[in-house]
Amino acid sequence: MKKIRIGILGYGNLGRGVELSIAQNPDLELAAIFTRRDPSVLRPLTDHAKVYNVKEALNHKDEIDVMILCGGSSTDLSSQSPAFASHFNVVDSFDTHAKISQHFKSVNTSALLSKHTAAISAGWDPGLFSVNRLYAESVLPLGNSYTFWGKGVSQGHSDALRRIEGVSHAIQYTIPIESAVKEVRKGTHPQYTAREMHTRECYVSLKPGADMDKVYAEIVNMPNYFSDYDTSVHFISDEEFMKNHSAMPHGGFVQRSGTTGAKQENNHIYEFSLTLDSNPEFTSNILVCYARAVYKLFSEGLYGAKTVLEIPPAYLSLQPIEKLRAELL
Amino acid sequence: MKKIRIGILGYGNLGRGVELSIAQNPDLELAAIFTRRDPSVLRPLTDHAKVYNVKEALNHKDEIDVMILCGGSSTDLSSQSPAFASHFNVVDSFDTHAKISQHFKSVNTSALLSKHTAAISAGWDPGLFSVNRLYAESVLPLGNSYTFWGKGVSQGHSDALRRIEGVSHAIQYTIPIESAVKEVRKGTHPQYTAREMHTRECYVSLKPGADMDKVYAEIVNMPNYFSDYDTSVHFISDEEFMKNHSAMPHGGFVQRSGTTGAKQENNHIYEFSLTLDSNPEFTSNILVCYARAVYKLFSEGLYGAKTVLEIPPAYLSLQPIEKLRAELL
Ligand SMILES: NC(=O)c1ccc[n+]([C@@H]2O[C@H](COP(=O)([O-])OP(=O)(O)OC[C@H]3O[C@@H](n4cnc5c(N)ncnc54)[C@H](OP(=O)(O)O)[C@@H]3O)[C@@H](O)[C@H]2O)c1
Ligand SMILES: NC(=O)c1ccc[n+]([C@@H]2O[C@H](COP(=O)([O-])OP(=O)(O)OC[C@H]3O[C@@H](n4cnc5c(N)ncnc54)[C@H](OP(=O)(O)O)[C@@H]3O)[C@@H](O)[C@H]2O)c1
Repeated sequence: MKKIRIGILGYGNLGRGVELSIAQNPDLELAAIFTRRDPSVLRPLTDHAKVYNVKEALNHKDEIDVMILCGGSSTDLSSQSPAFASHFNVVDSFDTHAKISQHFKSVNTSALLSKHTAAISAGWDPGLFSVNRLYAESVLPLGNSYTFWGKGVSQGHSDALRRIEGVSHAIQYTIPIESAVKEVRKGTHPQYTAREMHTRECYVSLKPGADMDKVYAEIVNMPNYFSDYDTSVHFISDEEFMKNHSAMPHGGFVQRSGTTGAKQENNHIYEFSLTLDSNPEFTSNILVCYARAVYKLFSEGLYGAKTVLEIPPAYLSLQPIEKLRAELL
Repeated sequence: MKKIRIGILGYGNLGRGVELSIAQNPDLELAAIFTRRDPSVLRPLTDHAKVYNVKEALNHKDEIDVMILCGGSSTDLSSQSPAFASHFNVVDSFDTHAKISQHFKSVNTSALLSKHTAAISAGWDPGLFSVNRLYAESVLPLGNSYTFWGKGVSQGHSDALRRIEGVSHAIQYTIPIESAVKEVRKGTHPQYTAREMHTRECYVSLKPGADMDKVYAEIVNMPNYFSDYDTSVHFISDEEFMKNHSAMPHGGFVQRSGTTGAKQENNHIYEFSLTLDSNPEFTSNILVCYARAVYKLFSEGLYGAKTVLEIPPAYLSLQPIEKLRAELL
């Protein structure tokens, strides 16, 4: 069997995760890694992996079936995804929720013009969480949906902490409030504000001479990020930071509680949950499945951008559909 | 907007559930109910619902966009589904796992010949559980999967109890073993036998003069059904039976625990769970979504049989895809 040849664009957490994930999937192979940095500074995990500067990507077009775009959502993907969809089949994990419709349009336009296929916003949120919101809202039209995240690191909030004057290292964990989780799981359909669902826990080390009280006040009063939440701040040493806060766990759950019956007397609870030791490695495993799906769609002449909502579940699997029907149904 | 006109074939628990579910979905309307019994004995929940004998179904072909087949899997669907797929778009909930591939083939052949679309084995297991097994196994190729059912009524096991001489009423609840559930949720990848995952709890009322010890022995030693499980039997009165054992709760969960990382050092837990007050009403809500999906597939000229594994999630929703992308991703 000819393997599907995967290119990795951008070698950060997801880039490394995709590299590891390819090794778990016997129908895939790593074609090459592309980076905006000097290729010689990268230390790939795979022996003999080919690493090129991104400027050379077009020269390797014919060696790559699907390019997985592992850049950041805030700065890289809104330009990288449409640009690469002009020459490659692509997958990205674009997660700036408010801009997804616009991102879809620009990637779709590129991909249709060049006759390629693109899967955008794959991952777990957006991604598997979105798929589950869709199934849950469809099968329980009368009900309430909830998403809880954590315990896990919010990259955006950690970045916001690091921009504060005097901060050396910083990380922010989002933590679901246990009593709210319990209430939701009872199926009582509670209405919550943001503050009632999650707390934000910050671990911060300071630069020499920094004013702890000032940093504290700046954090807890920061609009959009922290002022609407109960935020705790723990000041720790650089050493402790390195020792205890470099893992990237995450997770959370999507839940919907809805009713049926002549008098809506029957309640049903739908819940999808993830508990992840490594957010980027798990996300990468999903991206790799959508690369397989993109390859199948492309092979069938189905061009343009797709989202996880539009891609049939079976396209993610390396097993033939007859086997899936016989074993999973 | 023209509504999708739904026919119901077979008026038992699912038939009534589908009728109730149509009322929750503004894009659907009930066209007619068909039964093998005398139509005058049925008491539909909807005012002015049209009820016909199944022999008249073909005369109403043009009034129905999708026929939902609500017959039993063991006796009705293997003949009803292919027969009706020759004249209608259909949805069924066929759940005899070992025969699904064969059922798929016969429905597919009928539907392709007549240019109709069919969704088979929709529901929650097979159905949403199958979809989640597929996503989980695809995104975590290295891992172990588990399905726990219950607490809930097993129709097949209840039927087996009722066939025993001397039994008046009987019901069987499948109950997951709490310690096994806990171990699985820890992500320790345990290996279990059937007996280690579920117990079977039976509530039985006896006919006058029946031999309690004989009935008990016959139950706990029944091969395939009970002998491989820890089975408890509670003998109760007919009156208590009617009062406490007529609800149809069910549920359960699909879980997969898998690893990633250079040394498989990171563990991830994927879990999908349902807690249902009424198994047939929730199942019916799913069938109705797949009727919508079948109607869309048919409108696009995509004929033949499909399973939940092959149908894109967005086809289940009454919302336009642009709205789903903007709101759920
Ligand atoms: N949908 C989801 O569920 C989901 C889940 C997790 C993450 N995400 C998204 O995935 C995006 C990427 O996450 P990530 O953790 O992989 O980000 P990251 O580690 O910061 O990497 C982003 C890019 O930064 C560059 N980079 C990495 N390490 C660098 C270094 N030491 N020095 C200079 N540049 C470096 C790389 O590009 P070059 O190699 O070209 O320099 C890399 O592609 C996030 O922005 C997030 O939006 C989505
Ligand atoms: N995939 C899943 O997750 C899932 C979940 C739940 C159930 N199921 C499947 O759904 C099937 C149907 O379940 P159900 O609970 O609706 O079965 P049911 O109540 O026994 O109904 C089955 C058929 O029996 C006939 N019937 C109903 N009540 C009757 C009565 N009082 N007297 C004589 N006949 C009567 C009806 O046909 P007529 O009107 O033509 O007589 C009806 O279509 C099950 O066999 C199971 O396989 C699947």
